[in-house]
Amino acid sequence: MSLENSSPLAPPPLPLLVVLSGLSGAGKDAVLAGLRLSDIPLHISISATTRPRRAGEKDGFDYHFVTTARFQELIDRGELLEWANVYGNYYGIPAEPVRRALQAGKDVIVKIDVQGAATIKKILPGAVFIFMVTPYMEELEKRLKQRRTETSDTLELRLKTAAEEMRHLPMFDYVVVNHPGEINQAVADIVAIIKAEKCRIARRELSV
Amino acid sequence: MSLENSSPLAPPPLPLLVVLSGLSGAGKDAVLAGLRLSDIPLHISISATTRPRRAGEKDGFDYHFVTTARFQELIDRGELLEWANVYGNYYGIPAEPVRRALQAGKDVIVKIDVQGAATIKKILPGAVFIFMVTPYMEELEKRLKQRRTETSDTLELRLKTAAEEMRHLPMFDYVVVNHPGEINQAVADIVAIIKAEKCRIARRELSV
Repeated sequence: MSLENSSPLAPPPLPLLVVLSGLSGAGKDAVLAGLRLSDIPLHISISATTRPRRAGEKDGFDYHFVTTARFQELIDRGELLEWANVYGNYYGIPAEPVRRALQAGKDVIVKIDVQGAATIKKILPGAVFIFMVTPYMEELEKRLKQRRTETSDTLELRLKTAAEEMRHLPMFDYVVVNHPGEINQAVADIVAIIKAEKCRIARRELSV
Repeated sequence: MSLENSSPLAPPPLPLLVVLSGLSGAGKDAVLAGLRLSDIPLHISISATTRPRRAGEKDGFDYHFVTTARFQELIDRGELLEWANVYGNYYGIPAEPVRRALQAGKDVIVKIDVQGAATIKKILPGAVFIFMVTPYMEELEKRLKQRRTETSDTLELRLKTAAEEMRHLPMFDYVVVNHPGEINQAVADIVAIIKAEKCRIARRELSV
């Protein structure tokens, strides 16, 4: 009986569902693009949307661009993990590719607005919730806290939106700060979070 | 008033005290050696011990080798964060270098046995607790669970010791598996854990 030669027998941790959310303009899309280029095996969920395709965007890569009728069909058939209407455009996460990837043992990352993240938290509390901010947004928050009055109308609106979004912060596990010009650092943080979460005792079946 | 040009104002997360513990023979020293070679700014605590210096070990690098009288002095003066007598030899963590490093904003890692880790958990619950195992130890655990009876006396003793150590597992935050020949992977896991912990919401003062 050779114990030394035995193969690792503890079950590997289950694949993770990583929910990437955060303030508008925090750079979530840039981080996803960075993750696509990284060498970690990660399924990046591609959302469906009814909003018009922008210059440079590719169908099936940046988004699945669909008609409102098609989107309604996806809703009716229960084919979306989560969906929302944001300023008149629909956004949704097709459930099947997420399920398939998780079943194949692959980690999955989905990008979603804070309200959607809150919904996923209710369905899948074991998912990993990451909130992205920029230092600029942290400045916004600081200003909100100080309740300054010299803000312009535009700033005030942004402050209000950010404040509304920040209210969801406590339900998240991690905050990733996207410093301007250092997107790779934010990508590295997310890679580290995924690696660390796989080491969490709570995700292993090691207790005796 | 230019918000875009404002510098990051949210306070950076506090430096971490990382407690590295785990089963005997899991490779903690090898991992510390790997961390020394990594480029992350980390203060690696050097324990004091009364056990004789082994071939290849350097005083002030692997351990501070001290006499029993000197060790007793360190205990009496309260200069040890934690200490223990293991099979007749004393081991202790000098408190001052740890405090100095943390005050300078540097993360600190201390190696300690599981009982010592439990003591530190009571004093400093905010520390990060990592439990190291090898697949071999996981195999040990599996055998313990299955309560096989064909074990030799020696194995039985190791199983008992491991079982005793494993009982402390639930107080740890992370488990790092040191696969034979892949020490760099275990080092990378610990680096990722430190990076991820700095992103944890609970460690940031961002809530509104």
